[in-house]
Amino acid sequence: MPEPEWDPYNRDCPTRAMLDRIGDRWTVLVVGALASGPLRFGQLATRVDGVSQKMLTQTLRGLERDGLVTRTVFPQIPPRVEYELTETGRTLQEPLNALEEWASAHMADVLRSRAAHDAAV
Amino acid sequence: MPEPEWDPYNRDCPTRAMLDRIGDRWTVLVVGALASGPLRFGQLATRVDGVSQKMLTQTLRGLERDGLVTRTVFPQIPPRVEYELTETGRTLQEPLNALEEWASAHMADVLRSRAAHDAAV
Repeated sequence: MPEPEWDPYNRDCPTRAMLDRIGDRWTVLVVGALASGPLRFGQLATRVDGVSQKMLTQTLRGLERDGLVTRTVFPQIPPRVEYELTETGRTLQEPLNALEEWASAHMADVLRSRAAHDAAV
Repeated sequence: MPEPEWDPYNRDCPTRAMLDRIGDRWTVLVVGALASGPLRFGQLATRVDGVSQKMLTQTLRGLERDGLVTRTVFPQIPPRVEYELTETGRTLQEPLNALEEWASAHMADVLRSRAAHDAAV
């Protein structure tokens, strides 16, 4: 059976919901944080300043279910749990890093535009 | 004054909220739809299958305020209103297109992973 034609412009295509997952701010930051190698939950929570435990858990579970992150439990006392990008997860780094870079490169322009827009309204 | 160091890993940096804007599914689809040139509201609504009028209006207003899209009213009867990417808006095309392509390229893998994950739970 041929692969279907994926098209996020079609409301029923699963790629549309997938855009929500990969464009989500927490996904962008978690995938970026894992770029340098596996991290524990607490390390991720520190790196992604201000993320709630609930939101980080939810983001990691979603990424795990989608096959983008693995969760490994090392049997020691206390147990050590590490999160790591899968091979597919690593392919996300480049596009998500481009988003981060775009935001940093254009933030000043965007803030100027907002100020001008709000002054004109 | 030097430009600040933008860092979406810092909870107070405006780039973090900017990631929400540019990673939003409607932004991705609207910017992609405008890649080929200016469009009217109705044309955009048709292209971005299933978007509500409210959500499309909100997305366009946000993009306009951020300086990424212009709204031009042509004085004719009935008035014609066109939306077009600005120069800054056009710089978003490449990273957002990469997101769309990633979603299409990996959707099958992700769906397989979800099915395996849900079967194992």
